[in-house]
Amino acid sequence: MDTLRATLGEGAVATGPDAARWSNDWTGQHEWTPLCVARPADTAGVASVLAAAREAGVAVVPVSGNTGLAGGTVAEGAVMLSLDRMNRVRDINAKARTATVEAGVILSHLHEATAPHGLTFPISFGAKGSAMLGGMLSTNAGGSGVLRHGNTRDLVLGLEAVLPDGRVLDAMTALHKDNSGLDLRHLLIGAEGTLGVITAAVVKLAPLPLARATAMVAVRDLDAGLALLNRLQAASGGAVEACEYMDRTFMRAHAAHFPDAARPFIDDHDVTILIELASTAPRDATPGLDGQVPLAGHLETVLGEMLEQGLMRDAVVAQSEAQRGAMWQRREAAAEVITTRKPVVITDIAVPLDGVATFLDCMAARLLRIDGGAVPVAVAHLGDGNIHYAVWPSDAALKDAITEAVEDEVLALRGSFSAEHGIGTAKLDSMRRRKDPVALDVMRAIKAALDPDDLLNPGKLIPPR
Amino acid sequence: MDTLRATLGEGAVATGPDAARWSNDWTGQHEWTPLCVARPADTAGVASVLAAAREAGVAVVPVSGNTGLAGGTVAEGAVMLSLDRMNRVRDINAKARTATVEAGVILSHLHEATAPHGLTFPISFGAKGSAMLGGMLSTNAGGSGVLRHGNTRDLVLGLEAVLPDGRVLDAMTALHKDNSGLDLRHLLIGAEGTLGVITAAVVKLAPLPLARATAMVAVRDLDAGLALLNRLQAASGGAVEACEYMDRTFMRAHAAHFPDAARPFIDDHDVTILIELASTAPRDATPGLDGQVPLAGHLETVLGEMLEQGLMRDAVVAQSEAQRGAMWQRREAAAEVITTRKPVVITDIAVPLDGVATFLDCMAARLLRIDGGAVPVAVAHLGDGNIHYAVWPSDAALKDAITEAVEDEVLALRGSFSAEHGIGTAKLDSMRRRKDPVALDVMRAIKAALDPDDLLNPGKLIPPR
Repeated sequence: MDTLRATLGEGAVATGPDAARWSNDWTGQHEWTPLCVARPADTAGVASVLAAAREAGVAVVPVSGNTGLAGGTVAEGAVMLSLDRMNRVRDINAKARTATVEAGVILSHLHEATAPHGLTFPISFGAKGSAMLGGMLSTNAGGSGVLRHGNTRDLVLGLEAVLPDGRVLDAMTALHKDNSGLDLRHLLIGAEGTLGVITAAVVKLAPLPLARATAMVAVRDLDAGLALLNRLQAASGGAVEACEYMDRTFMRAHAAHFPDAARPFIDDHDVTILIELASTAPRDATPGLDGQVPLAGHLETVLGEMLEQGLMRDAVVAQSEAQRGAMWQRREAAAEVITTRKPVVITDIAVPLDGVATFLDCMAARLLRIDGGAVPVAVAHLGDGNIHYAVWPSDAALKDAITEAVEDEVLALRGSFSAEHGIGTAKLDSMRRRKDPVALDVMRAIKAALDPDDLLNPGKLIPPR
Repeated sequence: MDTLRATLGEGAVATGPDAARWSNDWTGQHEWTPLCVARPADTAGVASVLAAAREAGVAVVPVSGNTGLAGGTVAEGAVMLSLDRMNRVRDINAKARTATVEAGVILSHLHEATAPHGLTFPISFGAKGSAMLGGMLSTNAGGSGVLRHGNTRDLVLGLEAVLPDGRVLDAMTALHKDNSGLDLRHLLIGAEGTLGVITAAVVKLAPLPLARATAMVAVRDLDAGLALLNRLQAASGGAVEACEYMDRTFMRAHAAHFPDAARPFIDDHDVTILIELASTAPRDATPGLDGQVPLAGHLETVLGEMLEQGLMRDAVVAQSEAQRGAMWQRREAAAEVITTRKPVVITDIAVPLDGVATFLDCMAARLLRIDGGAVPVAVAHLGDGNIHYAVWPSDAALKDAITEAVEDEVLALRGSFSAEHGIGTAKLDSMRRRKDPVALDVMRAIKAALDPDDLLNPGKLIPPR
């Protein structure tokens, strides 16, 4: 710690009560006591922390916004390396549509910085006001924009990282094509800080839409939800930005938790879809003779057809940015609403696009056999096949059996038991039992090759043999 | 070889004259004599070849279409492992827009197989009639569709590979989100067969466009070319599929090599752009009162503005699929046209999007100092910043100095000396001298961890220390 204070400055190393805010994750599921929290202001500082910790044989756990859901920043007795002071947007190149950002930049700050250029970093999720780019890169964060724009990794052109031995890997390019060797960028993205500490990146920006059309739609069933997505994609030429599913239980729980929030429908429905189209083409944003923009026209046409065919029960189209905001607030409150009731089993699974209904049906039957009193509650990024399937069991002792059943059903559909939240410590056991053993061995070999002393975020992501 | 014959069958192992077609690359720059060519029909066969070769301590060089440009299949004294018999499209899932393909599937066969479903695998390049998916994945092939659809790696959901030790890595998922561990898929894609032999993949398909608008446009300079791209993106909401640059020398050389090909313009121009828009939205494909589809309207509006502003010299819009085909044939003949004259220096570089003109200007000045008689010829995927910059020097002895100068200029712009063709053996020297030494060390560590005996495609991609 003396070395760290001497290198980084007195104020850049927190201990004791000053380190308290880095001693747990926001869900309250994980608590720990770090040795200290080092807060370097630049890449050289990060390198010096890693070198000093290696010298002392102490583990280092990188952290940025600390909004993760898988316990990836648990740091008992370790040096926490916080990137929060590396919070500069170094550059915005509007012509090339790129931004150069440091790991401590908060997602919503990046949105604010790019908006005046008519551009945005097209990823968004509930924690956007505190999540930082470093953590988003290290966990390959997903969210609601993946359907159109891809995961975080798909939006990264270049990056800079400090390796376990303290050396800096400089891959800060803004290139759209680069086939010079193994793709180390993709290896570091999603590695949850086990192979290196990402300090900065060059990310792609997308033009801000000129027009949006957003609706809450109650449909007959999940097949009708997929039909809504596919018909809108066809009609608009692929302009759907988000297609989010909320089940009846979630809608009711939201209404109970936020009694003042206006409810979209008078009746309750099994399947509610939040769907949003967006376009950057002027013709989509230019009101016609009826005062309506063409993008909204696609939405109304498809909704009209589905109503006639008995596929749709009800729909509300947002008439203002405020109404649109309220629709998104409901969806983005999912984590908060679902964790209001305890005990709770939370999952983050992915299945092929046409497997969501199958999964939910099979699980409903299975859950009945495990726990007749259990209440499932599901929200999903339907367009990505990514379901946040949760269960409120009647007895906490049944949690493991329920998780087990979920994973069985997911693997039967060749799905993933961790779609967007990562592994951290929370899913290490699933990782050991569920992941292809050959893949695990390859991961272990890579980790051992790059971090032979196992000092960088040890005990995360890759289960020991 | 006896082991291989016993395992794979007599006809699946070629030697001597039967192996001749696997003894060189198509450019004629690389020749070799393989020990034999093993042609397994399935993944188990691939695994048995790797296991047998490892047992015997013999190197294995995987090959599929053998259309690479970097000598990645040089196999002197090695067992060549040809994937050409693994040529099944196992499945096309139109609803989920995916195809499951084996490594020996030829790109144009995949295009033919998906077209009846209204879908396509949106990558195309000159060698599409013989290039196979395995090689495309192993080299992360680019081409003309990258601007809109990304590189090959961006279109892969899952894959299967046989590791150097003969074990099969099964990552054959069709998931859009999967954060369960290190991303081994991206590590194997672009690894040029040094870490494993990719045997099959699940790839994303895109809807076939309902309308296209294609033009050859002579513009004032490269800045005007970029303006054309940006204005069309803005007007169409991002519907540009390709933006290809051809310089004056290339246009003349093409005319000389194909004297019967109709020339797009009477005059010669410095900067010719092949631009193509495409849309899957019915409204873009429905002719208006003037008989024109709206997509073509965007093109004509932007071209009209640029003509008025003095940015455009001439333009021809394709009026039929035949005319469109002729435009693409000219661009896709680039490798053939450029290699007609010898000696030749061929490069495959990438710079940030706004760096193409800077690169060409700086190189022109530099080339004059190196070789007053040298003739540069350039075609580029302008929308990706990827330039195939070639030079016909007056003296073959100057080739190295020219390559050196190109790489200097590229690195000054933080570009890449290998954008889409990869490293193979041809660019190993550049890789050793130009790549970040920290990145090289990481690559060596990974290679050593996964292939400790250095038997899988040795001497490619990663230069020895």
